[in-house]
Amino acid sequence: MTVNSLSKNQITTALTERATNSKGRRLSPESLLAMTDGKVDRPPLDALAGQSILNPRQFDRRTVVAISQLAAMLELRNVEIDKPLDGKIAITAFFEPSTRTRLSFESSVQRLDGKVLSVPDGQVTGIAKGESLADIGEMFNTYGDVVIMRHPDTDSIDEIRRNLQRPLINAGNGSGHHPTQALIDWYALLKWRPELSLPNCPPDRRVHLGIIGTPGSMRAVKSFLRLSLMFAGSVERITLISEMADPVGLDLTEPIEESPIPIDIVNDVQDVLPTLDVVYVNSIAFLGDSYRNLDNRFKLDASSNLKSDAVIMHPLARNDELSEDLDETDHNLYFAQAAGAVFVRQAVLTAVLDRLSRISGI
Amino acid sequence: MTVNSLSKNQITTALTERATNSKGRRLSPESLLAMTDGKVDRPPLDALAGQSILNPRQFDRRTVVAISQLAAMLELRNVEIDKPLDGKIAITAFFEPSTRTRLSFESSVQRLDGKVLSVPDGQVTGIAKGESLADIGEMFNTYGDVVIMRHPDTDSIDEIRRNLQRPLINAGNGSGHHPTQALIDWYALLKWRPELSLPNCPPDRRVHLGIIGTPGSMRAVKSFLRLSLMFAGSVERITLISEMADPVGLDLTEPIEESPIPIDIVNDVQDVLPTLDVVYVNSIAFLGDSYRNLDNRFKLDASSNLKSDAVIMHPLARNDELSEDLDETDHNLYFAQAAGAVFVRQAVLTAVLDRLSRISGI
Amino acid sequence: MTVNSLSKNQITTALTERATNSKGRRLSPESLLAMTDGKVDRPPLDALAGQSILNPRQFDRRTVVAISQLAAMLELRNVEIDKPLDGKIAITAFFEPSTRTRLSFESSVQRLDGKVLSVPDGQVTGIAKGESLADIGEMFNTYGDVVIMRHPDTDSIDEIRRNLQRPLINAGNGSGHHPTQALIDWYALLKWRPELSLPNCPPDRRVHLGIIGTPGSMRAVKSFLRLSLMFAGSVERITLISEMADPVGLDLTEPIEESPIPIDIVNDVQDVLPTLDVVYVNSIAFLGDSYRNLDNRFKLDASSNLKSDAVIMHPLARNDELSEDLDETDHNLYFAQAAGAVFVRQAVLTAVLDRLSRISGI
Repeated sequence: MTVNSLSKNQITTALTERATNSKGRRLSPESLLAMTDGKVDRPPLDALAGQSILNPRQFDRRTVVAISQLAAMLELRNVEIDKPLDGKIAITAFFEPSTRTRLSFESSVQRLDGKVLSVPDGQVTGIAKGESLADIGEMFNTYGDVVIMRHPDTDSIDEIRRNLQRPLINAGNGSGHHPTQALIDWYALLKWRPELSLPNCPPDRRVHLGIIGTPGSMRAVKSFLRLSLMFAGSVERITLISEMADPVGLDLTEPIEESPIPIDIVNDVQDVLPTLDVVYVNSIAFLGDSYRNLDNRFKLDASSNLKSDAVIMHPLARNDELSEDLDETDHNLYFAQAAGAVFVRQAVLTAVLDRLSRISGI
Repeated sequence: MTVNSLSKNQITTALTERATNSKGRRLSPESLLAMTDGKVDRPPLDALAGQSILNPRQFDRRTVVAISQLAAMLELRNVEIDKPLDGKIAITAFFEPSTRTRLSFESSVQRLDGKVLSVPDGQVTGIAKGESLADIGEMFNTYGDVVIMRHPDTDSIDEIRRNLQRPLINAGNGSGHHPTQALIDWYALLKWRPELSLPNCPPDRRVHLGIIGTPGSMRAVKSFLRLSLMFAGSVERITLISEMADPVGLDLTEPIEESPIPIDIVNDVQDVLPTLDVVYVNSIAFLGDSYRNLDNRFKLDASSNLKSDAVIMHPLARNDELSEDLDETDHNLYFAQAAGAVFVRQAVLTAVLDRLSRISGI
Repeated sequence: MTVNSLSKNQITTALTERATNSKGRRLSPESLLAMTDGKVDRPPLDALAGQSILNPRQFDRRTVVAISQLAAMLELRNVEIDKPLDGKIAITAFFEPSTRTRLSFESSVQRLDGKVLSVPDGQVTGIAKGESLADIGEMFNTYGDVVIMRHPDTDSIDEIRRNLQRPLINAGNGSGHHPTQALIDWYALLKWRPELSLPNCPPDRRVHLGIIGTPGSMRAVKSFLRLSLMFAGSVERITLISEMADPVGLDLTEPIEESPIPIDIVNDVQDVLPTLDVVYVNSIAFLGDSYRNLDNRFKLDASSNLKSDAVIMHPLARNDELSEDLDETDHNLYFAQAAGAVFVRQAVLTAVLDRLSRISGI
């Protein structure tokens, strides 16, 4: 249908208060909150005040669930009237451009009435190109109250924190981590199947989790796996599907060995696909200084041999590893996953900036 | 005069509340509102709630006049105290960079106390370059309340709307349309000669409209012409001046045939110039994937053979088709036209976001 | 220390209300205000209402001190509750990208509850690249209330002011001036040694000022020197250290001749360094259309032969002319200098936009 053929009715949108995804499964924040009679577990959130969010290992299962509960409450309620971030300034410093992630954070801040200093492309800083990240961190001390940084170098986190005195939220550092993405992933899982939030999920509700990708060189996959290892009462098995001989990498070797969750690694998606309840896909791997896409063998589409009630997750943006013909199916959890991002980031920012007390009724 | 020779008096500006243009004709919002005893025609504005603004054909004459009345009211009054867009977020997604248009929209939103998520250069989205517009539309669903998009592809509007559930304002799509620019153009005309807002303008106040440019490949010109065809009671004749054999293009062939306004096409500006009341100039045409400037034959300057009371319009930015020596003359309506842009966009956004009721006294 | 080895305690930051520098000397706004029993000299600030801030020569000593007093008050108090710039829009037009300076201004505006229209990279304006600065100034008239511009051309100030009717703040124009940087520099000096704010500083508190750099081609250095010439009761001598035969340039020849402060020019930093109380360093010089760094002979580090109580200033960003091994020493005034920038710009913006009356208790 072209613009010229549109009638007036077809161009009118309901200005609903509640934002959600256009296709795929719709998730219910109510069902997650129902597990605790609507209550948010407050102590782990209070403990986040003033913390930097750098690596999923700083969390535990209880904290992940509490952040999800707060996100659910924020998703359901119109918190603008509370203006919880009033007077706070967040700096979004994207030394590796990412419109998607930057806007997600900036929307989160502004919805809660905070303000944003935006650096859409930190590589373009004119003659000061040679400035060290340590000096940039010093500069940020008086400019804002929290710094949200994405950077292509894994070491960038340590470098900027040499002088930075404000909480730092790691929005992706090279092949390092992307902790808020992992929280977003689990927020979707906990809304989809709320029993996963219990310390001991009923056995018939536990999931077999498949991850298509290489945790060692994909930060989103690495952070998701790291968080998943905390859910031993909910995840009965994790299968890594990768073309790499050693997909795990150094960071996660120990956590995997210590986790009670059985983990296996396969390099053919076809055998394992029919056994998976959740299929997590990502396409983009760091290789040295550049990115490369996943092997085409791992492409999913509507004809893939999925369990009938399996759900697919993807941190997006996608390339052709995830076919659009899945969008209209119930396997599509990835649009609902993306739709929860703003609320998880709102929850993290409110906790880090110690403004939980501004949200009425929590 | 150089900075060094400036005295203090010369660097002091009156901090007037009312912003206007520096040179050329000053237009009066009061005179337009006087045609209706200060009243704004409310029903066509209410009908815009939740609508996308994609193509001028979705308007009619009455809607164009009502938007202009609301713009006039906003231009005259300090509406900040009403904060009509409080709590609303607009996404300015410029996949084709345009500082002028982007800032115009962002100023409109912020003056009304809305917030902005800015994408100054949508081509720079890092590794997600391959992301489809449909996926970007999905992402925007939870980020903002309205999306303002400029894109070099004419099909971009249909593409992003595959998943986007929020109202979309088309700020220019390839060789397609630029509907808010056309509203801005008519707002200037209606302030300049308020009788043009009447269904039947007195014959001696009707105008002969000349358009230098190629509607088929120039979206601003196309949208202006499309809107002008609705003003059969006010426009007595339209003359298109173009070097192209068929300047009209497919989109407007039918509307032109159906309009009672006589239209002729000439390729020499000199013959027709002395007969025109309004001369609309634009310089930039799409040719394939790139832009080209208008032929130099169509250049206007202070020595051009204009009627003494003729006015020149231009959507700006200009190149050398419009000489600066016209700036200080009464032919210059283009600076006043530009100065009205913010108020027209305020009117459109307030109507689309269903916040008319927040403006006291309307 | 890597991210992986961080304990929770190590990633927690005190969410202090008062922002300051991480290393080097901490400066006290209280001590500057104590010189006037906490009072701000109001008349010179009132005189700034509606003024453009273009060149340090428009100031006098009294105005510089008054701006510093207001900055000190803003640094000490939580002025967000006053919302002094509520309803005002600042346009940050950076035709020469500078993340540091742009964010500093944008933080200043937003801390006072004003709004920002941001042009991070004014060279990227799409097809309108050929637009004149005069036309851009015309466009800005209705978009914002004050324009903050950085531009690589010295003439840009005069060019945009051909049509601009709003106050303009020059944030650096080619080899011209950078007046707010000079105010920031003096704010740091006046906090460091408050007696310098007196018309007649006690002789044993006066300073010998050394400037490593070339005022003729370095705008920050030029503006700092121009302001320093106003402090004849506080500066006992100025020594310029430069590799250039004539480092001063045309702009300052006359002010230097007219100033009672003795000025000498040397090209070897070693001889003079042990005599200096204040060493001002900058590294970046304009040469034609490009930049070049300072000669390596002028590099300072912890082994440099500085007076024990000498302080080093630098407008930042730095390259290797200023070694990081000085950061932890008491010579480091440059981090405190940078930390005052936001407050000085807040003071200037509040005065220019005539909103002093909104700050309670001034």
